[in-house]
Amino acid sequence: MWIDSLGRDELIVEHQRQSANYTALLDAALALNLTRGKPSPEQLDLANGLLSLPGEDYRDPEGTDCRNYGGIKGLPALRAIFGELLHVPTDNIIAAGNASLEIMHDLIVFSLLKGTQDSPRPWSQDPGVKFLCPSPGYDRHFAICEQYGIEMIPVPMREDGPDMHRVAELVASDPSIRGMWAIPNYSNPTGAVYSEDVVRELVSMPAAAPDFRLFWDNAYAVHPLVGEPAPVWDVLGMAAEAGNPDRPYVFASTSKITFAGAGVGFFASSAANLEWYLGLVGKKTIGPDKVNQLRHLKFFGDADGVRAHMERHRELLAPKFRAVIEILEDRLGANKAASWTTPDGGYFISVDVAGGTAKRVIDLAAEAGIALTAAGSAYPYKDDPTDSNIRLAPSYPSLGELRTAMDGVATCIVLAATEKALARHDEG
Amino acid sequence: MWIDSLGRDELIVEHQRQSANYTALLDAALALNLTRGKPSPEQLDLANGLLSLPGEDYRDPEGTDCRNYGGIKGLPALRAIFGELLHVPTDNIIAAGNASLEIMHDLIVFSLLKGTQDSPRPWSQDPGVKFLCPSPGYDRHFAICEQYGIEMIPVPMREDGPDMHRVAELVASDPSIRGMWAIPNYSNPTGAVYSEDVVRELVSMPAAAPDFRLFWDNAYAVHPLVGEPAPVWDVLGMAAEAGNPDRPYVFASTSKITFAGAGVGFFASSAANLEWYLGLVGKKTIGPDKVNQLRHLKFFGDADGVRAHMERHRELLAPKFRAVIEILEDRLGANKAASWTTPDGGYFISVDVAGGTAKRVIDLAAEAGIALTAAGSAYPYKDDPTDSNIRLAPSYPSLGELRTAMDGVATCIVLAATEKALARHDEG
Repeated sequence: MWIDSLGRDELIVEHQRQSANYTALLDAALALNLTRGKPSPEQLDLANGLLSLPGEDYRDPEGTDCRNYGGIKGLPALRAIFGELLHVPTDNIIAAGNASLEIMHDLIVFSLLKGTQDSPRPWSQDPGVKFLCPSPGYDRHFAICEQYGIEMIPVPMREDGPDMHRVAELVASDPSIRGMWAIPNYSNPTGAVYSEDVVRELVSMPAAAPDFRLFWDNAYAVHPLVGEPAPVWDVLGMAAEAGNPDRPYVFASTSKITFAGAGVGFFASSAANLEWYLGLVGKKTIGPDKVNQLRHLKFFGDADGVRAHMERHRELLAPKFRAVIEILEDRLGANKAASWTTPDGGYFISVDVAGGTAKRVIDLAAEAGIALTAAGSAYPYKDDPTDSNIRLAPSYPSLGELRTAMDGVATCIVLAATEKALARHDEG
Repeated sequence: MWIDSLGRDELIVEHQRQSANYTALLDAALALNLTRGKPSPEQLDLANGLLSLPGEDYRDPEGTDCRNYGGIKGLPALRAIFGELLHVPTDNIIAAGNASLEIMHDLIVFSLLKGTQDSPRPWSQDPGVKFLCPSPGYDRHFAICEQYGIEMIPVPMREDGPDMHRVAELVASDPSIRGMWAIPNYSNPTGAVYSEDVVRELVSMPAAAPDFRLFWDNAYAVHPLVGEPAPVWDVLGMAAEAGNPDRPYVFASTSKITFAGAGVGFFASSAANLEWYLGLVGKKTIGPDKVNQLRHLKFFGDADGVRAHMERHRELLAPKFRAVIEILEDRLGANKAASWTTPDGGYFISVDVAGGTAKRVIDLAAEAGIALTAAGSAYPYKDDPTDSNIRLAPSYPSLGELRTAMDGVATCIVLAATEKALARHDEG
C-alpha cells in the first residue's frame, strides 16, 4: 500500500487532508444506505405488471384452480420455466413461497430433527454438526447455522470458487461435516463464479459423511451485469454422473427478479431428496401461494421472458456498479488503500481495506450518515480474521446518492488507513 | 340404536333392503368428495376482487413500499383489522405468509431445538414431550406432533370444550405436557365452542411445566353458520389477568375467508413470545409477502368488511350444512343408526356411527365413489378407539352433489350397522 511507504511527516499531512475531507463529509449530513442487496424502486417498477395480475383468470395451464388448497410442488408451468433457467428437469424442481431462505432453513431443521433421507440418524443425535462456509460469504446462510449450533468452518473464497484443496481435504476426512454453503454464480459478496472444474470436483469429491450436502444457492443465476452471462452448470446432472445424485440442494428465487418481498422461491434436487422434503414440509403447509405463482407465470410467459426482464435490471444496475468501481479506482487506485472485486453479476462488491481497519471504516461511515453492512458480516460468527472486508451493496440508492456515498466511503477508507499507519509509526 | 332391537329375521330383511340401496348407489357411479374443508368455487369467487389487486398503488397506509424486503411483523393496518376481529391489540399480532399451520409447525420446531423463551432448555433435550389433544380434533395438528415424536394424549371433547377435569389433572401433574391443541370456536370436527368458563380455566389452571402453551387455533373465529356468532374470547387478556400471560399462542388465517391457498396467516401472543418468535423466524425469512397483505387490506378496508364478507360465505355454506343435517335426520333419525353434531359455525359435521363400523362405512362409501376423510383421522395416531367417528366436510360439493353424496353415506351407515348387528347375532 502506498501509505506504508510514507514517512511520519508525510503521513501526518495525509491524515490532516483526509480529516478535512471527513469533516466536510460530516457537514454534508448524509443519510444513505449501502447495507443490503435491496432492489431499487426503479427495479421493482419493472415488475409492476404483477400488481394487477392474474386478473379474472385464476386457472393455470393445467386447469388447476390456483385459489384453492393443494399442489404442494407448485405450478408445473412455472417450474418448467425456472427448470429451464437452472438447467433442471421440471420433475426435479418445485416452486414454493416467497423465500428460498426458508427452504434452506427448513432443510437444516428437518435434518437436525429427522435426518436427511440417507442419514444414519437425525443430525441432532450426532455429537457435532459442521458446515463449510466459503468466506467471505452470505451472512444469512451463516445465521441459520449459528442459530442451531452448527459449527462453521471458514474456507477461503477464490475467483473460481472456494479453495478446493482445503474443501476436499476437510470433507474427505471429517464425517461431522454435513454441508457446505455455495453461491455458484456471482457469489455474495465477491461476485466470484464457480468454474466447471470446481463444480465437478464438488459433486465428485469423496465425503466422509454419507449424507454430505451442497447447499447450492443459485440466487444470481440470471443476474449478469455484462452481456454474456456465466454458465449455469447442470449441477444435479453432474452429481448424478459422479455417483452422488443426492448431494446438491439447488435454490433460486425471484426475489431479485420481480418483487423482493413477494416473489417465488424454488428448490431443485434429486427425486429421493424431493420426496423426503415434500413428505416433511407437507406437515407444515397444504401448499404454496399458487395465485402468486400464476401471477409470475402470466407476467413472464416463458424463460425468454425472464431473460428479457433481467436485461432491463442490468440496464439499471450496471451503471451503479460502474460508478462504484470508478470512484474506488479514482480515490484508492493510486494510493492502494484498498482492493476490490469487479463482479460480472450479482448484487455486491467486496472491498478489502487495510488490515485492522474495516470496523473503523464502517464506524466512520456510520457517523457520516452512510450505513454499510456491519463489520465481519461476510464471515462465520461475524469474525473477519483480518478485519479488512467490507461488503458494498450498490443496488438501492440512486446513481447520484451512490456516487456521494462512495466518495464518502473512500474518504473513510483512506482516513482509517492513515490513522492505522500513523499509530504503527508511533508504536515503532 | 333401533337396529339393536331387531330380531335376526328382521335384521336380514333390513340388510337386504340396504344392500339393494347400496347396489343402486354403486350403479350411480358417483365421484364425490367430502374429505377436506375446502371452500367451494362459489366461495372463492367472493374474493375474486383480489385477483387484480393491489393495482398500481403498492404502498400501505404507513407509506411502506410493499414490493421490497422487510417488515417481518406484516402490515400494521392489516394486523389492526385482524387484531380487532380476534380481540388482540395490534402490537400483539403479526401477519405472516399463507399458512398459519406453518407458524404452529415452526413454534414446535423452535421449541424442540431452542426451547421457548421461558423453557429451562430445548424441549428435545428433555426425556419426553407430550401434547394434550382434545379428540376428535384436527388431523393436521396431530400430524405435526407425530412427525417430531411428540407423544399425544387424547382428551375427550365436550360441547363446551375439552373435558376440563381431565385436562386440569394432567397438566397439573405431568411436567412433560408442554402444550395443548385447541380450536376454541366451531372446533374441527365437532363444531364445539369453548365456553367462557373453559377458557378461563385453561388460562388459569396450574401447569407442572413452566412453559406450558395453549396452541389456540382460532381458524373459524369469524365463520358462523348462524346470525349471531359465538364470542371470541380475549384469551391473551384473560391469560395475563390469570398470571399466565405467555400461555396462549393464538392463530388465525384468511384461508377460509379469501383464497384457501393464497391467504394471510396471523399469530398473536404476548410481547415476550412474539419477540422470541420473531428473533428465530427472522433467520428463515426477510419478511412475509406484504403485497398479498396489501391486497387483503384493500379488499376488506376494515373489520366490518371482513364481517360482511363472511356473511356472504354463510349464505353459501348454511344451506349445505342444513341439507346434510336434514338427510341425516331423515335417514338415520328414526333408526338411530348414528348421532351427529349440528354446528353453528366452522367447516365440519362430526358423525358417530355404530361402534366398530366407521372404517367399514368409509370403505363402502369409497367403493361407491364417495370419498370421506380416512377413518380415525380426527384422533391422535389416527386411532379412533371405538372406530365410530366420521368427519363430514360439506363445503366443497354443490348442494345437489352434496345431497346425493349424503344419501349415499346414510345408506352406507345403515348397511354397515345391519352387517354388524347381524354378525353379532350370528356370534351370540
